[in-house]
Amino acid sequence: MRRAVELASRGLGSTSPNPVVGCVVLSPEGYPVGEGWHQRAGGPHAEIHALAEAGDDARGGTAVVTLEPCDRTGRTGPCSRALIDAGIARVVYAVADPSAPGGASSLAEAGIDVVQGLLADEAAAGNAAWLTSVREQRPYVIWKYAATLDGRIAATDGSSRWITSDEARADVHRLRARTDAVLVGSGTARADDPHLAVRGVSGAVQPLRVVLDTDASVVRPGARVLDDAAPTLVAVAEDADAGELEGVAQLLRLPRAGDGRPGVDLAALLGELHARDVRSVLLEGGPTLAGAFVAAGLVDEVIGYVAPVLLGAGPAALGDAGIATIAQALRLKVTETVRVGPDLRITAVPATAARAGTSGASVAVTASTASTASTASTEEF
Amino acid sequence: MRRAVELASRGLGSTSPNPVVGCVVLSPEGYPVGEGWHQRAGGPHAEIHALAEAGDDARGGTAVVTLEPCDRTGRTGPCSRALIDAGIARVVYAVADPSAPGGASSLAEAGIDVVQGLLADEAAAGNAAWLTSVREQRPYVIWKYAATLDGRIAATDGSSRWITSDEARADVHRLRARTDAVLVGSGTARADDPHLAVRGVSGAVQPLRVVLDTDASVVRPGARVLDDAAPTLVAVAEDADAGELEGVAQLLRLPRAGDGRPGVDLAALLGELHARDVRSVLLEGGPTLAGAFVAAGLVDEVIGYVAPVLLGAGPAALGDAGIATIAQALRLKVTETVRVGPDLRITAVPATAARAGTSGASVAVTASTASTASTASTEEF
Repeated sequence: MRRAVELASRGLGSTSPNPVVGCVVLSPEGYPVGEGWHQRAGGPHAEIHALAEAGDDARGGTAVVTLEPCDRTGRTGPCSRALIDAGIARVVYAVADPSAPGGASSLAEAGIDVVQGLLADEAAAGNAAWLTSVREQRPYVIWKYAATLDGRIAATDGSSRWITSDEARADVHRLRARTDAVLVGSGTARADDPHLAVRGVSGAVQPLRVVLDTDASVVRPGARVLDDAAPTLVAVAEDADAGELEGVAQLLRLPRAGDGRPGVDLAALLGELHARDVRSVLLEGGPTLAGAFVAAGLVDEVIGYVAPVLLGAGPAALGDAGIATIAQALRLKVTETVRVGPDLRITAVPATAARAGTSGASVAVTASTASTASTASTEEF
Repeated sequence: MRRAVELASRGLGSTSPNPVVGCVVLSPEGYPVGEGWHQRAGGPHAEIHALAEAGDDARGGTAVVTLEPCDRTGRTGPCSRALIDAGIARVVYAVADPSAPGGASSLAEAGIDVVQGLLADEAAAGNAAWLTSVREQRPYVIWKYAATLDGRIAATDGSSRWITSDEARADVHRLRARTDAVLVGSGTARADDPHLAVRGVSGAVQPLRVVLDTDASVVRPGARVLDDAAPTLVAVAEDADAGELEGVAQLLRLPRAGDGRPGVDLAALLGELHARDVRSVLLEGGPTLAGAFVAAGLVDEVIGYVAPVLLGAGPAALGDAGIATIAQALRLKVTETVRVGPDLRITAVPATAARAGTSGASVAVTASTASTASTASTEEF
């Protein structure tokens, strides 16, 4: 299963709006005879690739797959049927499919031994964006920032090039390549005229570039974000005068935030992105936009690039999020720390989500009358 | 040598004003037959402990020691003489003694094969405080802070209990136990009435508690820092009215900072502490004091406890350090990142110091006419 999770991760960034899925087929004797992963939306599912590689060796064997096999005929045939037709005797999958359950039942009804839950946390983490989007009906939001050790994103004179290293900035391009959309606010658009496309990642699918320019006051014809390197959406308030952008940029009109707060309704923004098949958003804006997302409870993951640099003054990475006292602080759980060149990359998720773990994402273990396997017996995979 | 460095580290916190030193004695056949480390100032040196354990097995053997053996009769006899008398044939040491060279020469003159430089960086890092104090004639300064992922040390209402975890706070007590003095400024003294003694570390030598109360306006009889758990020094400006503290606290009078800057002359403060045998200072004050030390170029090491918490507002860990633009930023090098409970501990040293490495601390390799050993031949240790 660890191998299947690894295979699945190869699809990150190119399968949306589908999940990433990896599959390993084992012969009846337990040898791996086929591997596959879902490579792109519209292409064959992981199971189909793995079964094709396994050929006749799959008969009587086991399919180890990160996500419950599908049971429907979409752009490709149902995987449950393919597994049955290939003579697979046993299916071990990590995470149930909350979008379309039924695959496990069909397999069990066909007499296949079905086991769920192996490495479910790891597999769910690899599919966090897709699982969140299915559950919440909005994209998974990753807030990325780059700051000094003392939490500054620029010096007092506004200079910020470069706080983090070449290596860290290259890593951000890989991060962009794994997400469906990159979002900045008007402050960043004004200060940096950012390009936001992926550079230096071979074979990358360009993310949708989104600028949240509430009053249509910043993005102008000629902005770097409006070139043809990737599609771009400029989100403005429904009553904004966006005359200068008509015909130049694709506009998305959104209701303003309620309760007298500035900006637009972020939930509406995410809803519109979800409707456009965006399953993950990389928040690359400044402290104001990040603060608004944190205040709205709409941050699913935080990735901080921390440079070993001290400034002692300058703007902080996160602006007002409506938190006035320690008891209201947003508590996270660190999931990874990695050195990236001289810098650190710290990844964390909200502690409540970490506690809920995959339980929010996975359904109950599929009842399988044919299954007698205990958890222990599946550890060999 | 790695074992010797490990042995040396056991002395951290109890050998000051001496260095930490570790020693392993190997028999002529290369087996370890004696180990020792310098345990406390005034007690036997590492070599003496190791030779005692080795006994006659030391004859014809090798002494592996983290610091050049001493050559002088202080509170204990010269180690060079003890090594010669024990019949040691070869001495491998990591770092030269910048405070009193001569040991290596004496050994070489006695016909002992002497090699310097093995694991010099590691050994020097373990002795960073002592080496810095010898080189700079001031204590080694460690700035410790505890902050959120977004760099805040408190919320806007001032609440800060607790940002970091129990584990991180216990780790700070171990850090205090390894240093000779703990320093806070008047802001922290006023806000927290801190105690600053070591708790929960068995056998710890209590550090000197130092409060920098420039105008003698904050520390008052009854302050927790004035109890008898550890010695305390209250540093005030030479012209401050400290009447209320006379007879209650030990006072240290210092010149005010020049150039119209607030506070006292920090170099003078460190000089006075050095004169009191303080070789390392843990800076536990708030952003103002930290900013003053950074501005003065008087921070040798930064240890940040970073909690996976977001606040979006509140004071930053580091205050004004006179840095206005990125080019002036203090660049560091991360030397360690460790999880401490749910938090991260990030250790870094100024990049200039990291580049200089131990070269600033070590003297040239001792010329030894008897030595024919190459670096390669010493790697077995």
